[in-house]
Amino acid sequence: MFKKTLLAASLAAVSLVGNTAMAAEKVDLLIKNATVLTMNADKTVYENGLVAVKENKIFAVTDGNDVNEYKAEKTIDADGDIVMPGLINTHTHVSMTVFRSLADDVPDRLHRYIFPLESKLVSRDMVRIGAQLGNVEMLKGGVTTYADMYYFEDEVAKTVDEIGMRAVLGETVIKFPVADAANAEEGIKYAVNFIEEYKDHPRITPAFAPHAPYTNTTETLQKITELSKKYDVPVMIHLAESERENQVIAERSGGKSPVEYMADIGALTPNLVGAHMINVSDSDIELLKKHDVGVAHNMSANIKSAKGVAPAPKMLEEGVRIGLGTDGPMSGNTISTIDEFNQVAKVHKLVSKDRAAMPPMQVIEMATIGAARALHMEDTIGSLEMGKLADIIVVDTTSPNMVPVYNPYSALVYSAYASNVKHTIVDGKILMKDREMLTVDEDAIRQEALDFADKVRKTVVESGEVVQ
Amino acid sequence: MFKKTLLAASLAAVSLVGNTAMAAEKVDLLIKNATVLTMNADKTVYENGLVAVKENKIFAVTDGNDVNEYKAEKTIDADGDIVMPGLINTHTHVSMTVFRSLADDVPDRLHRYIFPLESKLVSRDMVRIGAQLGNVEMLKGGVTTYADMYYFEDEVAKTVDEIGMRAVLGETVIKFPVADAANAEEGIKYAVNFIEEYKDHPRITPAFAPHAPYTNTTETLQKITELSKKYDVPVMIHLAESERENQVIAERSGGKSPVEYMADIGALTPNLVGAHMINVSDSDIELLKKHDVGVAHNMSANIKSAKGVAPAPKMLEEGVRIGLGTDGPMSGNTISTIDEFNQVAKVHKLVSKDRAAMPPMQVIEMATIGAARALHMEDTIGSLEMGKLADIIVVDTTSPNMVPVYNPYSALVYSAYASNVKHTIVDGKILMKDREMLTVDEDAIRQEALDFADKVRKTVVESGEVVQ
Ligand SMILES: [Zn+2]
Ligand SMILES: [Zn+2]
Repeated sequence: MFKKTLLAASLAAVSLVGNTAMAAEKVDLLIKNATVLTMNADKTVYENGLVAVKENKIFAVTDGNDVNEYKAEKTIDADGDIVMPGLINTHTHVSMTVFRSLADDVPDRLHRYIFPLESKLVSRDMVRIGAQLGNVEMLKGGVTTYADMYYFEDEVAKTVDEIGMRAVLGETVIKFPVADAANAEEGIKYAVNFIEEYKDHPRITPAFAPHAPYTNTTETLQKITELSKKYDVPVMIHLAESERENQVIAERSGGKSPVEYMADIGALTPNLVGAHMINVSDSDIELLKKHDVGVAHNMSANIKSAKGVAPAPKMLEEGVRIGLGTDGPMSGNTISTIDEFNQVAKVHKLVSKDRAAMPPMQVIEMATIGAARALHMEDTIGSLEMGKLADIIVVDTTSPNMVPVYNPYSALVYSAYASNVKHTIVDGKILMKDREMLTVDEDAIRQEALDFADKVRKTVVESGEVVQ
Repeated sequence: MFKKTLLAASLAAVSLVGNTAMAAEKVDLLIKNATVLTMNADKTVYENGLVAVKENKIFAVTDGNDVNEYKAEKTIDADGDIVMPGLINTHTHVSMTVFRSLADDVPDRLHRYIFPLESKLVSRDMVRIGAQLGNVEMLKGGVTTYADMYYFEDEVAKTVDEIGMRAVLGETVIKFPVADAANAEEGIKYAVNFIEEYKDHPRITPAFAPHAPYTNTTETLQKITELSKKYDVPVMIHLAESERENQVIAERSGGKSPVEYMADIGALTPNLVGAHMINVSDSDIELLKKHDVGVAHNMSANIKSAKGVAPAPKMLEEGVRIGLGTDGPMSGNTISTIDEFNQVAKVHKLVSKDRAAMPPMQVIEMATIGAARALHMEDTIGSLEMGKLADIIVVDTTSPNMVPVYNPYSALVYSAYASNVKHTIVDGKILMKDREMLTVDEDAIRQEALDFADKVRKTVVESGEVVQ
C-alpha cells in the first residue's frame, strides 16, 4: 500500500457550531454560497454550503449557517455554482497531446502507426511540451489529479511540480527498444531512478508502468511486482484490452485470460491499477476484487477503437475499485474526464438496455472518490471532507447549457462542458481562476506545442505516412 | 417541396482572379486567414482561405490568394481558426430547456412523467422563456438553424425572429388534450393559422408536427399530408422510435412497421422529416429513400433512453437524407449538435464493431449539408458556397483541447466543445461575437428561466412527483 500520511484534521470547525461568542476562525480560503457535492459516504449535498481551507487541507465543509464564523484570507462567492472534489483521471498518456487528431481510425493503429511514430518523435522535449499542454487542458477541465504512463516520466514530473497539480506518474517498461530504454531491463532501471528521485514529493507519486502483459515477459512483470512492494509504489498497466492480448496471453499461459494470468504469476496486488479491463469474465472480476486491484475505466477511448465496453456496472456492484480515465489524447481524444461523463452514462444504458443503468451519481462517483479508490488514494483525495487534501473545483451553472439545475449530478453528467469549470484548486492553491491559468503561461505552452506539431507534420509527411 | 427561392449568385468573385487592375469588390463581411471547411460536393478545404459575404448571402469562398481584392465593411481575421457552415439541428423541442435535468432516467418517462408535467406547466410564457434560453444555447454552440416540434409554436417563432436565427417550426398535433388544443382537429387549425402567418418569413419555415403515428389517427395523418401539399410546408414527426409504437401500429395496420404503415396511408412524402428512425429494416430504408423522406438522427438522446441506435451508416450508404438532431433538452440534454459529434462517431464504431465506421467527415456532413438535406434545404444552407445564405461559424482552435489540428474534421468531432464556437453568423449578421450575444440580453433570458424553474420546482414538489 502506498498511502501518503494523512494528518489528523483539526476538529475546531465542529466546535464552532452554536458558539457565537467564539473568535472568528482564521482560514486561508473560504468558498461560500455553493451547491456543495461532498461525495462523502452519505453523498451529502449542501444547497447553500461552504468549504473552508487551511493550508493545503480542507478545514470544514458545512451547510453554510456558520459562514460568519470564518475570517478568510481569500473568499470565493460561488453564488450557487457547484463546488465539488477535483476530478481524478485514472489513466492517460499526457504527453501525446502533441499527436492529437493524427491518423484517427487507422486499423491496428497502435502497432502499425503509433509505435513507429513514437520511435521517431519521442524525446525529452516532446514529453515536456505535450505534458505542459495536457496539464493545462486537464486543469481547465477540472482534473486535479491524473495517472500517467509514458516515457521520460521525470520530464512529466517537472511539469506537474511546476503547475501545481497532483499526479501518479508511471515510467513505461516494455520489451522492445523505446526512446528512453533499449529493453525492459533498462526501463526498470529508469523507473527505479525516477521512483527514488520522487518518492517523497508531496504531490507526485512515482510508479512503474509495464505497458501490458503481452508486451512484457512474465519475468519482467514479476520483477516489477517485487520492486513495487519494496518501494511501496503503484504499478500501472494496460490489462484485458484487446483480442491480440487475449491470444498472446492464452498461448503463453495455456489458455488463461489476461487477469487469470496476472493472478497466477503473482502480479495482481493492491498496488496494481489496470487500465481498460474490457475483456473480463465474472471470475476475472472476482479476482480483481480479491486482490484489491484498481481499475481505470476508459470508455470513451475504448469505443472509439471499437474494442468494446468494460462491464463497469458489474464491477461497481461487486465493489471493485473503479474510476474514470480518458486514455491518451490519440485515443480519447480529450483528456478531461468531464468530456466523457455524458457518454459513460448513456453508453452503459445502451449496452444494458436499461435507462436506469449508470445513473449520474455513479458517474460522478467514478470521477471523484471512486477514481481515488482506483488509485488507492481515497484517504487523502476524492471527496470534500474535513482533513482531506484541498483539491476542489467550482463549476459554473450560469452557462445556458447548465440552466436550470434541478439535480446537480444530472446537470454535471448530461449537460456540463469541461469549459464550465470556473476555478480549479489543488493542494489549497488556486491554479485556475475564472478560466485563467495562474501558475503557467498558457500562450507560451500552446505556441511550443504548435511549433512541435509543425515538426511532426514534416516528419510524418516526409516519411509518407498517413496524416488524416 | 418547400424550397425557398435561391437568388442566382453574382459571378463577380470568379472574374476577380488574375485581374489586378480591377477595383476592389465591396462586401459587407470578410472572414480571412481561415481553415475553411466548405462542405461542398468535393469537400474542399482551404488552409488559409476566405469567405466574403454580401447582404445575407455568401459572395465568395476562396483559397485566400485574392484577399486584397475585397473592401469589407467588417473583417474577421480568423487567424487559422476553423470556418464552416453553421450547424443545423434537425430535431428538438427548444422550449423544454426549462425542464432540463428533471427526473432523468425515470422508466416510461414520456407517458408517466413528461406528458403529465406538460399538462400542468405548458403555457405561452413557458414556451417563450424556454425557447429564448435554448436559442442562446444553440447559437453559442454554433447552431444556426433548428427544427422544432412543440406547442404555441408561434411563440417560438417570435423568439427566432427576434434573435435572428433560422428555423423550421412545427406546431404539434396530437389526439389528446394539450395546452393549445383540445384535440387533433384543433391542433390542425392552430397549425394552419400559424403556417399562414409565417409562410413568407425570410428565416422561418412553419410546419405541421403530428407527434407520432401512434398518438394520432390515420385520418389525422392523412389530412396533415394533404394540407402539407396544399401549403408546401414540411411535416415533422417522431417515427420508428419505440416498442410501444411498434405494437400500436402493428395492431392498427395488421402487422406493418411504422414506416410501412406511413407509406401505405400515403404519408411518406418528400415533405416528411422523421425523427429517430431507430426501428427500421432494410426495406423500411428503401421506402424512406423512394419517398425522399428526411431523417433526424438523435443518437445521443436515443441511447440515454436505451432505445437503441438508428442504422445511420446504412442510411448514409443508401443515400437517405439524414442529419443530426439533439431531441429536446429533457432527452439529450443539451441542444447543440456539436455536443454529440464525439458520441455519434464513437457509438457507431462500437455498434458496427469497426473503428473505421462513421469517420469524422461523415459526422460533420450529417451536422451541416446532410442536415440541410434532411430538411430539404440543401439548396440554400448547409455548405459554404457562392450564392448560399450566409450561415457561418468560426471555431476557436487555440483552446488547449483543440491543439494541435492535424485534421480539422477529426479535431471538430473528437475534441471540440460547443464553447469552442467563437462567432456565429446567420443570414449575414453576426449574432454572437467572441461568445457575446449581440441581439438578445443573455442575463435577462437566464433570469427569466431560473424564475420559471422555481415555479416548476414548487409545482412538482407540491404534487409529490419525482424531482431527481
Ligand atoms: Zn493507455
Ligand atoms: Zn423529439
